[in-house]
Amino acid sequence: MQIAIVLFDRFTALDAVGPYQVLGSLPGAEVVFAAERPGRIGDDAARLYLSAEAALAEVPHPDVVVVPGGPGQRDQMADGPLHAWLRAADETSAWTTSVCTGSLVLAAAGLLAGRRATSYWLALGELGKLGAIPVTERVVFDDKYVTAAGVSSGIDMGLALAGRIAGDETAQAIQLGIEYDPQPPYHAGSPDHAPAGIVNAMRARSRFILTGRPG
Amino acid sequence: MQIAIVLFDRFTALDAVGPYQVLGSLPGAEVVFAAERPGRIGDDAARLYLSAEAALAEVPHPDVVVVPGGPGQRDQMADGPLHAWLRAADETSAWTTSVCTGSLVLAAAGLLAGRRATSYWLALGELGKLGAIPVTERVVFDDKYVTAAGVSSGIDMGLALAGRIAGDETAQAIQLGIEYDPQPPYHAGSPDHAPAGIVNAMRARSRFILTGRPG
Repeated sequence: MQIAIVLFDRFTALDAVGPYQVLGSLPGAEVVFAAERPGRIGDDAARLYLSAEAALAEVPHPDVVVVPGGPGQRDQMADGPLHAWLRAADETSAWTTSVCTGSLVLAAAGLLAGRRATSYWLALGELGKLGAIPVTERVVFDDKYVTAAGVSSGIDMGLALAGRIAGDETAQAIQLGIEYDPQPPYHAGSPDHAPAGIVNAMRARSRFILTGRPG
Repeated sequence: MQIAIVLFDRFTALDAVGPYQVLGSLPGAEVVFAAERPGRIGDDAARLYLSAEAALAEVPHPDVVVVPGGPGQRDQMADGPLHAWLRAADETSAWTTSVCTGSLVLAAAGLLAGRRATSYWLALGELGKLGAIPVTERVVFDDKYVTAAGVSSGIDMGLALAGRIAGDETAQAIQLGIEYDPQPPYHAGSPDHAPAGIVNAMRARSRFILTGRPG
């Protein structure tokens, strides 16, 4: 089972590594980090460099496609080689998946039209404009399309997908293997629970990034 | 604030990237992935390659040291350049931390003698033999030494440490930024909750790895 994790400049590291750590533990998994051109790809902070071991063109028929998000997603919204690869790979994939704003790239490539999907909490509106049906859930399955909410949700997505692919027991063994018994020291991981001041400040900053005008 | 994340062959990717994603978001954070020699370092599956941007010798005085674990930890237990660097860096660090079996390396370097510490659930016995006081908690603070349990616990450790360094509000903003509102599809992330058959199989396999004899 080949799992292609797509990389592009200024991706968010945990978006890619969360699902990698889970799905890469599936029996028979062969993970390939792939980018338009192979080589080192810098994350959104330009502090972490992951190696794309293959060009997208070298992995035309992965069984599972994983598209991470991150600030660099904005440079991947125009039709071009990545979109063409995604559409072609999707024709034969068993599962086409994304984490965070990776769903915006899938949607822009035309793969989520009319489908229930999720994204980073600040990007759900944008996802709707791209033709998907935005859903405020952490992991959303619609047929073979599996989308996860922001950054860390790729771990939950990976486990849910591992269960579908290999059964509950295998997924549970992977969960124990990564000791995923989360105990966040705060209850602030979603806009529903985080202190309102923090949520509002992030919304305002996000509007500024999108419009150039302070919120 | 310089944060040095140590890499070595066959580290576990999420051990390093979990704390990176959190601590790298702290205001003024300057993260450096460092290894004995700079260059691409392969993870435990030899599928993911992270770039060590610096040699350990180039970052002698980080404010925060993070040591991940992984199967490659076993090759880092003998005294040598990494232990010497850890001891020297620890003399001036504000925080010396580990994830998973990274605590075994800290202990082997002599930094956890008589200190409360944790590790991967299958490695707590080993941690005790190395002179630390093993604690079955997800994140353990003992003075400036912060150790986390297995793999995914580095995210919780990062958030707890972020709170100590920059205050609760900043840590909560980071948590919301990575949408860390975990919803694992199974309740199997610790040996206390996972099905007994899975726990026992992993214990047996781990004994086999340590002793060469089936459990």
